[in-house]
Amino acid sequence: MILYSMPSSGNSYKVRLLLALLGRAVTRVDVEYDSPALAQAHADGRLPFGKAPVLVLADGTALPESNAILCYIGAGTHFIPQDSVARAQMLAWMFWEQNQHEGVIAVRAALLTYAHRKPDATPQRLAELLDRGHALLQIMEDHLGRHDWLVGTAPCLADICLCAYTQSAGDRGGFDMARFPAIGEWLVRIAALDGYTPL
Amino acid sequence: MILYSMPSSGNSYKVRLLLALLGRAVTRVDVEYDSPALAQAHADGRLPFGKAPVLVLADGTALPESNAILCYIGAGTHFIPQDSVARAQMLAWMFWEQNQHEGVIAVRAALLTYAHRKPDATPQRLAELLDRGHALLQIMEDHLGRHDWLVGTAPCLADICLCAYTQSAGDRGGFDMARFPAIGEWLVRIAALDGYTPL
Repeated sequence: MILYSMPSSGNSYKVRLLLALLGRAVTRVDVEYDSPALAQAHADGRLPFGKAPVLVLADGTALPESNAILCYIGAGTHFIPQDSVARAQMLAWMFWEQNQHEGVIAVRAALLTYAHRKPDATPQRLAELLDRGHALLQIMEDHLGRHDWLVGTAPCLADICLCAYTQSAGDRGGFDMARFPAIGEWLVRIAALDGYTPL
Repeated sequence: MILYSMPSSGNSYKVRLLLALLGRAVTRVDVEYDSPALAQAHADGRLPFGKAPVLVLADGTALPESNAILCYIGAGTHFIPQDSVARAQMLAWMFWEQNQHEGVIAVRAALLTYAHRKPDATPQRLAELLDRGHALLQIMEDHLGRHDWLVGTAPCLADICLCAYTQSAGDRGGFDMARFPAIGEWLVRIAALDGYTPL
């Protein structure tokens, strides 16, 4: 399998983290923003939805979408709960991450980080994303104040998925993480997992 | 099971459509925008992420996120492919829908439809969403020009998921659907499925 991975992207990091936690290796092609390698991957038709990460499977299928890749790689491992309700709750967090969390937490970090996003980083937009991001992080905080993990009593794909952009929400996104101590403790638990690798 | 469903919302419609296609009935609580029923559902803590739809399971679990609900209800039916690669591709379309398609196609429709969204419906925002939406619909068009269904040779959860906001993209969102004949034919195939119900 070949993983097209953007080194600076949380969506790509999720996949690298799951592979590290499982002790599995794949061939990696780094496709950073504005790099010739990214242009080549586009030209070769390797990015079906125009974005990294993409996992190219043994049969040549190019599988896009970080969370679909997590589900594929995670199948049959302890990172997917056996119980059908727990599995549905795991997917609920993962769809919420793509629909709500990523579009606010990751986008504010991108506006502050990438030169080509600067024109969109107006004070009004940054202020609005800050408020919305704090509200979203509060949803995680409320849950993690009562539970060690997002679903059940062990880490699952939802934790791997949501830790990616949450880890860098303070440093890169400018969110006030001191408000969210339970998230901080959860991130420490994730970093203590055997095989853990940082962004 | 109890389904908290917003009648005007494509996310809620997806769940109603899958239930209809499977010939399954659940108790339905309609929670339209600005309704007392929606306020009551919030007050009762029935909407974990603050949004409909939510499916309350037999054990009392409130399961949010339309696509997670589709996966839960669809488990063990012919709407989830047996093959692991096809299943991953189904999830890829569904995550793409929440990360890309819904945030553009549904949002433009909402800006044009709901009174409380009017202040955000600036000409610049509408023009930007129009361009981005046409680019996203072109990804579906390219695929459906070569395939009858989004994954494999039969309808799956990805088709049910993506048909919701795509059906109303022209009428409510103002997208130029004449550009996308293969999408139009796919929508006709979906509407011909046994048990189909319109929005």
